[in-house]
Amino acid sequence: MPSDQHMDAAGPRRPRLTPPIADVRRAVREAVGRVATKERIETTTPPPLVLVALSGGADSLALAAAAAFEAPRAGLRAGAVIVDHGLQPGSADAASAAAAQARELGLDPVLVRRVEVGDEGGPEASARAARYAALDEAARETGAALVLLGHTLDDQAETVLLGLARGSGAASLSGMAPVTGRYARPLLGIRRTTTRQACLDAGLEPWDDPHNLDPAYARVRVRERVLPVLEAELGPGIAEALARTAEQLREDDAAFAEQIEEFIEEICEPAEAGIAISVAALAANPAALRQRVIRHVVASEFGVSLSRTQTLEVARLVTEWHGQGPIDLPGGALVTRAGAHLVFSTTGSTEVLEHDH
Amino acid sequence: MPSDQHMDAAGPRRPRLTPPIADVRRAVREAVGRVATKERIETTTPPPLVLVALSGGADSLALAAAAAFEAPRAGLRAGAVIVDHGLQPGSADAASAAAAQARELGLDPVLVRRVEVGDEGGPEASARAARYAALDEAARETGAALVLLGHTLDDQAETVLLGLARGSGAASLSGMAPVTGRYARPLLGIRRTTTRQACLDAGLEPWDDPHNLDPAYARVRVRERVLPVLEAELGPGIAEALARTAEQLREDDAAFAEQIEEFIEEICEPAEAGIAISVAALAANPAALRQRVIRHVVASEFGVSLSRTQTLEVARLVTEWHGQGPIDLPGGALVTRAGAHLVFSTTGSTEVLEHDH
Repeated sequence: MPSDQHMDAAGPRRPRLTPPIADVRRAVREAVGRVATKERIETTTPPPLVLVALSGGADSLALAAAAAFEAPRAGLRAGAVIVDHGLQPGSADAASAAAAQARELGLDPVLVRRVEVGDEGGPEASARAARYAALDEAARETGAALVLLGHTLDDQAETVLLGLARGSGAASLSGMAPVTGRYARPLLGIRRTTTRQACLDAGLEPWDDPHNLDPAYARVRVRERVLPVLEAELGPGIAEALARTAEQLREDDAAFAEQIEEFIEEICEPAEAGIAISVAALAANPAALRQRVIRHVVASEFGVSLSRTQTLEVARLVTEWHGQGPIDLPGGALVTRAGAHLVFSTTGSTEVLEHDH
Repeated sequence: MPSDQHMDAAGPRRPRLTPPIADVRRAVREAVGRVATKERIETTTPPPLVLVALSGGADSLALAAAAAFEAPRAGLRAGAVIVDHGLQPGSADAASAAAAQARELGLDPVLVRRVEVGDEGGPEASARAARYAALDEAARETGAALVLLGHTLDDQAETVLLGLARGSGAASLSGMAPVTGRYARPLLGIRRTTTRQACLDAGLEPWDDPHNLDPAYARVRVRERVLPVLEAELGPGIAEALARTAEQLREDDAAFAEQIEEFIEEICEPAEAGIAISVAALAANPAALRQRVIRHVVASEFGVSLSRTQTLEVARLVTEWHGQGPIDLPGGALVTRAGAHLVFSTTGSTEVLEHDH
């Protein structure tokens, strides 16, 4: 059922190319362009599929419209998957309406998946887990090369602030990744006002999820109460600054991860009941790297995440050594300074096994 | 004029050792301990001086009391400098009252400096500039080894949020340094509620600067309006998370600075009218480092600071090279991709001068 706006001189499905529509399309073009380039060498039949995760809200609806336009031009197919979380009366109808919009935009296939949302880790975390499980499955079934998610710059800013409530430092504040595995978030540089305007310009009617106004969700509180206060008191541009911060801190973290990757093999040795790291190597590196190595070793050996306070206490075995005793780590492991090594072990043994040199 | 609280069994100037007093003293002990260690080898006469920058507010008053207690125990003298900004009626009286408190605490010398606050860069920036000029001068005159500043964890959290209004990334969000040259901020890990309680416990009456409630100051708005909303909506612990974030991002930035320092000589060559960087070296490094090298070179060669957008545009001459033309930099310089080099110059010349190998 094309709306009146579609019936202009250009005919149905050809909305006027307004700046918001152009912005969203450009962002989607860049994201699908990477798939097109990657897959171009393999002459697959049929063309690779890009799936849009569609809620029917303004962000994902604008994304779906842009994908419908850009994918064929990049030699790709565009489809959609709608996840019905079943969390409110009428959610099935909302899902059907979104599916109808997707079909009308020319997306194919269009899948609707009903999920059961549990209770583990709070309502947001469990809805998220159920949603990604359904998206993963849909991507596997359809063999999608890429799944596009509609998160915008505003979502990214909210995620940074939510990260602050959970922790600190570059890792907590680096927001959502533009690309993770088969998932891409092309709209991380685009404001929510732009996606909404793009929908209006295209004569598309977005669905307003009532959950987006429910202050039981921390994200809603950040959106409705925290960000407006930040903008009012610190001046406009805070959302953009938070999003840029996420981008830069993500790069910083990636650089450190690469450096750790490069030199962790050199500085670690097997110990009788764990692993040993050279004190001299740790001392020679800046604090940021030293502390990341400590956290990395503990996480990968014992599967636990050290707090900053714990990390600093371990680091002092290197930087402020005055004969401290072994330090208990969460999960029952111990770290002990033994001569030229920090020994991380489950038993407290400080025996370092000799490498074959 | 010792207050009644001082006249307990322990006599005047011996407040009960409460946890807030102990916390502030411990922080000051660590800071002055570094001077004591550094200066111990030189047997100076008289002992080295630690100056407290005192406003009379709870933070610096608690700091002054702790310095009066700790400095002699570390073989140091403690003095105070009070800066009268002359911004409000009665500021001279407030300064005199603070000076009297300092003398009563046993600090010596106690200096009061009246400054002229200009208008450049806004009221906060110009008051800050005048204050540090006066502190610098007082430190030079008295030969102070260390100047202690009373900034607390709350000030640090506010500074991080204010940094967000000005920019983004690790450099903007890394707050105030615990040590810069002869300045130290021992209380960055201590809450403002603790310094206030330490004053009360010691029978000291802090002065409440009316400017601390004036919403014309961005810092006041952050303190009175932004942080309370963040705490209310995201849960308590946000100020601590912001302060920890500052600490970690400062470490991250220091690590990158060290890495740049190490390899900038290797990858830069003199060019006819500027400097040339090896494209291969830039390409081999992670984005975080590549972008910092670009900003560093432009800042040190031409004295201008690139925005993130400008930095990324220059970086694309390395990472997405498809024959782009020269890019104008602020301040009239140009960067040009010339074969295996990025050439930064004032004339657009891309002549790379050969090193003597």
